[in-house]
Amino acid sequence: MRDVSIIGIGQTPIGEHWDKSLRQLAYQALAAAMRDAGIERTDALYVGNMLSGEISGQSHLGALVADFAGLHGVEAVKVEAACASASAAFRQAYIGVASGLQDIAIAVGVEKMTDDVGSRVTTGLAGAADADYEVIHGISFVALNALLMRRYMYEYNLTREAFAGFAINAHSNAVHNPNAMFRKPISKEAFMRAPVVADPITLLDASPMADGAAAVVLCPTEQAREFTNNAVRVAGSAVATDTLSLHDRRDPLWLRAAELSAKKAYKQAGVGPQDIDFFELHDAFTVMSALSLEACGFAERGKGTWLAQDGEISLTGRIPITTRGGLKARGHPVGATGLYQIVEAVQQLRGEAGENQVANARFGMTQNIGGSGATIITHIFERIE
Amino acid sequence: MRDVSIIGIGQTPIGEHWDKSLRQLAYQALAAAMRDAGIERTDALYVGNMLSGEISGQSHLGALVADFAGLHGVEAVKVEAACASASAAFRQAYIGVASGLQDIAIAVGVEKMTDDVGSRVTTGLAGAADADYEVIHGISFVALNALLMRRYMYEYNLTREAFAGFAINAHSNAVHNPNAMFRKPISKEAFMRAPVVADPITLLDASPMADGAAAVVLCPTEQAREFTNNAVRVAGSAVATDTLSLHDRRDPLWLRAAELSAKKAYKQAGVGPQDIDFFELHDAFTVMSALSLEACGFAERGKGTWLAQDGEISLTGRIPITTRGGLKARGHPVGATGLYQIVEAVQQLRGEAGENQVANARFGMTQNIGGSGATIITHIFERIE
Repeated sequence: MRDVSIIGIGQTPIGEHWDKSLRQLAYQALAAAMRDAGIERTDALYVGNMLSGEISGQSHLGALVADFAGLHGVEAVKVEAACASASAAFRQAYIGVASGLQDIAIAVGVEKMTDDVGSRVTTGLAGAADADYEVIHGISFVALNALLMRRYMYEYNLTREAFAGFAINAHSNAVHNPNAMFRKPISKEAFMRAPVVADPITLLDASPMADGAAAVVLCPTEQAREFTNNAVRVAGSAVATDTLSLHDRRDPLWLRAAELSAKKAYKQAGVGPQDIDFFELHDAFTVMSALSLEACGFAERGKGTWLAQDGEISLTGRIPITTRGGLKARGHPVGATGLYQIVEAVQQLRGEAGENQVANARFGMTQNIGGSGATIITHIFERIE
Repeated sequence: MRDVSIIGIGQTPIGEHWDKSLRQLAYQALAAAMRDAGIERTDALYVGNMLSGEISGQSHLGALVADFAGLHGVEAVKVEAACASASAAFRQAYIGVASGLQDIAIAVGVEKMTDDVGSRVTTGLAGAADADYEVIHGISFVALNALLMRRYMYEYNLTREAFAGFAINAHSNAVHNPNAMFRKPISKEAFMRAPVVADPITLLDASPMADGAAAVVLCPTEQAREFTNNAVRVAGSAVATDTLSLHDRRDPLWLRAAELSAKKAYKQAGVGPQDIDFFELHDAFTVMSALSLEACGFAERGKGTWLAQDGEISLTGRIPITTRGGLKARGHPVGATGLYQIVEAVQQLRGEAGENQVANARFGMTQNIGGSGATIITHIFERIE
């Protein structure tokens, strides 16, 4: 297998893009990534997306994006793993280049959630869970996460307050991210009085629905210097799955697929949690931040929220997370999110994160979660010296 | 890159499976393929599916199928390319094994179309076309193909009768396929008086909606003998795309993506059309058979139907097609079809096609089409001597 690096990144601002269609968003990110890499063609295109069929009546996004981008004839396909779809698309692009089959591959993640009329987004998102054994009882995806958070609070004797640090940190980091949806800091008081969405999850525990697209260009590391002087290596890449239903897990408070995929990624990269300089985790809900930190070895079991309380997740802390705002404040266009995480990791490793720069970052980790932990995709990126 | 072979195949009968869920169908095919290969685990699972989100409210099929099959923790993802989804999943499994990353990979295609209430299947299938520029005008997917067929008849001065041979051949071959949906031969008279679906397409030009699943197990060719004595090599594999909208093609009667992907596959396999012993093509509508035969070099432009009239597509003809009934008579569970084609090609190359056996078959080709030709995936398989 060939070593693989990222040579170009692109993203659209995240928000409610009433004036842009699905294909326009995808193209905007794709074109920016291609310009950044200085390329005009690609051997393959992998599109990450979850909901376009349900919301926009449009399947077949591989051909759609290839066609609209003028990449005539190119190999193109869509990859889906619920909210982990963009990282799943990235993973296939990585394998394509690593295999020797493709010298350049592009992964683009795109989601347009605001075209929704009625409750198609809510219904569509519930499709990340088990339709026959969870959703059929009327539970929504946020309600599933509320069960998790309630259980976490009960098991570890915590109140809602323990999770405030995750939301405050995310909003604080989004202020200087020009592509973030919510660029306003929030106070602990605001967090505590936020309106309930599904008890105990409030508006400030939950990431927002949004439109957006992000893209990266990959090539073999040994060819990367032909394109750029700031390539970023894919040091580790892994996907793991768990039961689709929450009720089937022996221990619902342990993200086994996070642990499994992180261990594989650590092993491939030859590093451990102590070597990771920042961690773009999947804070779709605050409780998921705590669970990820624990499963990946950054905190002991039940002590994930301690990191948030002690300031260790800030840009200068022991393990900075959601450094550009995370899902909570940068926004969570579900099928694009994994590539936003990767684009942001590349910005950090290139030293292009501006006010949000993590000093001397060498290894950055991203983790993208599908469903309530049924698919978890972990990547480790390394600055090339 | 490593050479890759198929060491196990499985399929469910195609039909209206009111008593089986999506996961049960997928598992039945998957388990059969794993038994056939003599394996109990896999490194990766690629699920091909088009419509489960729209029809069953279930996304996230990678995790769903992995979980239900007891493949705990395994890497699993869904791949979608409209009606070419199953071949797209197969292609990713092929790349995974070829890369050296996965020693065993399974591709399973599954579709459950009969759970539909209302017109979600028709709406969902239209998502294979361009939602913003074709479907918005009210055209259905079958109507798009009717435009193509009408144009073909006009351009080449043909009547409906010219296409009869494709349907008659498919139905004739399905009689001895225990997994086929329609195991009844049809006469030319029946074809000529079949009720119209979208003029000039009749019920006997069109493939049926159906439920079904098919799966294959892949491993490196050099390890194949450890599992089986009848492995089948993947000699060629290619994906190409074209414009999503039919009206954007300079020549709507030429499947450019079929030509492109077939040429790549021929080149990789070191063969040409004259070496192909049978061709499992994508006869979703009779006109697509003619277009595929022309674009892949089996017939001159405008003369695809001549092969059907002259009997050259029969089991003993020059280029046998749809040897187990094709989409028309075996059935077309859209996101599973590509893997039915591949399973059938393996059966032919193993000499297990019974009454439908093509004598001394060495090279078999499959071609799976998404949309009205926007994604076309071609594979060439070779019997290992």
